[in-house]
Amino acid sequence: MITVVKIGGNVIDNESALEQFVADFAQLPSPKILIHGGGKLATRLAEKLEIPTTMIEGRRVTDAATLDIVTMVYAGLINKRIVAKLQSAGCNALGFSGADGNMIPAVKRNPEPLDYGFVGDIEATKINRELLSTLLTSGITPVFCAITHDGKGSLLNSNADSVASAVAVAASSIAPTELVFCFERQGVLRDVDDENSVISLITKADYPTLRSEGIISKGMIPKIDNAFRAIEQGVASVTIKHSEQLNNPQSGTTIKR
Amino acid sequence: MITVVKIGGNVIDNESALEQFVADFAQLPSPKILIHGGGKLATRLAEKLEIPTTMIEGRRVTDAATLDIVTMVYAGLINKRIVAKLQSAGCNALGFSGADGNMIPAVKRNPEPLDYGFVGDIEATKINRELLSTLLTSGITPVFCAITHDGKGSLLNSNADSVASAVAVAASSIAPTELVFCFERQGVLRDVDDENSVISLITKADYPTLRSEGIISKGMIPKIDNAFRAIEQGVASVTIKHSEQLNNPQSGTTIKR
Repeated sequence: MITVVKIGGNVIDNESALEQFVADFAQLPSPKILIHGGGKLATRLAEKLEIPTTMIEGRRVTDAATLDIVTMVYAGLINKRIVAKLQSAGCNALGFSGADGNMIPAVKRNPEPLDYGFVGDIEATKINRELLSTLLTSGITPVFCAITHDGKGSLLNSNADSVASAVAVAASSIAPTELVFCFERQGVLRDVDDENSVISLITKADYPTLRSEGIISKGMIPKIDNAFRAIEQGVASVTIKHSEQLNNPQSGTTIKR
Repeated sequence: MITVVKIGGNVIDNESALEQFVADFAQLPSPKILIHGGGKLATRLAEKLEIPTTMIEGRRVTDAATLDIVTMVYAGLINKRIVAKLQSAGCNALGFSGADGNMIPAVKRNPEPLDYGFVGDIEATKINRELLSTLLTSGITPVFCAITHDGKGSLLNSNADSVASAVAVAASSIAPTELVFCFERQGVLRDVDDENSVISLITKADYPTLRSEGIISKGMIPKIDNAFRAIEQGVASVTIKHSEQLNNPQSGTTIKR
């Protein structure tokens, strides 16, 4: 079984949470893969450098200056800090952008109707499965940031959840793969105000009811939809859980066929 | 034959020189490895962020803030830009810091008598030869920046020439290896003001005379000393040449046993 874990800002932006997560992740049996998002560091660096943020419909535009910032912060600082910490915990981590080893090819999003700049949509079928397999067999733990490339020399900014799903789908062609999304909640909750109301299992049969009853709310819908899409493409299971519960098999919400 | 090439600021800081270099490097037969230095970008970013530069005896101190800057710029921006460009030129490049895959372990320099901060001296014998060999066999071209790590969770700033020499020595245990240092001159010159006065070959027998006659001048001595040290440790030859002459076998100064 290959385990693919995705972490976001709640871990990356909190030094003690990151230390704890790294210790927990290092203990997971191999083969395993880590995907990390960006957190707030890139925004803070852009502010310090007085690089203006352009938003379209509430979403940030990745212009050339912003692409440089996210490349520095995601592929440089955050990725290498995590890799160095994992190494010290005895996990042979190797950091990747999607350009490295042509691991994650992407296509620059069509600038019509809205131009988000250097944003890349992942070509999931083109992930370099062969290299991924070689590395996992060699005992390497790949650590991906969400910077990808178009194969024509341009780096692109991609969505970390999409990178995680695409990598998990690719890994599924090597061995059965579970995908774990870590975030700041205990899982999918029946009652958003009650962290004890975790729904432990969602199957394809349950999902329509949970949606129609309004139990699965707005922000969760794209996450669950993505999870089912990954499962349709071969991922064995998708779990959404709190980052502190990584090694607790009883925790979180598991989504299965 | 494995070719290890090192480039510095004259290539990295000049967009058109970098484009040309990438095209030339992509044409070199594999297996090959690229090592890049830092250039001026890190200094400029530190200035913009108003991070003060501390110098001891003319050498920059890598404090924690400076380590973050060089990690962002060297391991992030420059490394990933080069990797993306090489990918577009058909070369399957994969970027590395020394932490990635525990490729280049280093030891933080003793703070006595002078504390240079997070500076790492490379442990050449501990380079991950096995992974290097696996990658070269898989058709991967590793691209190293000069960020290393201490194995205890800290990244370190190392000298790119030393990274190049250490990687070439490690590669020599896999296959015969040539090491090429690209810089802004045609090679080692008999007359510093005459780019046509390149000394094409320096052997261990010639070197003392060239030094005692003052033909090899101050700045060149550590470079040539390093070259002979690499050769003593198994590197087949070391060539010092202009970055524009990468694919011209008649160019530069070759140092051999």
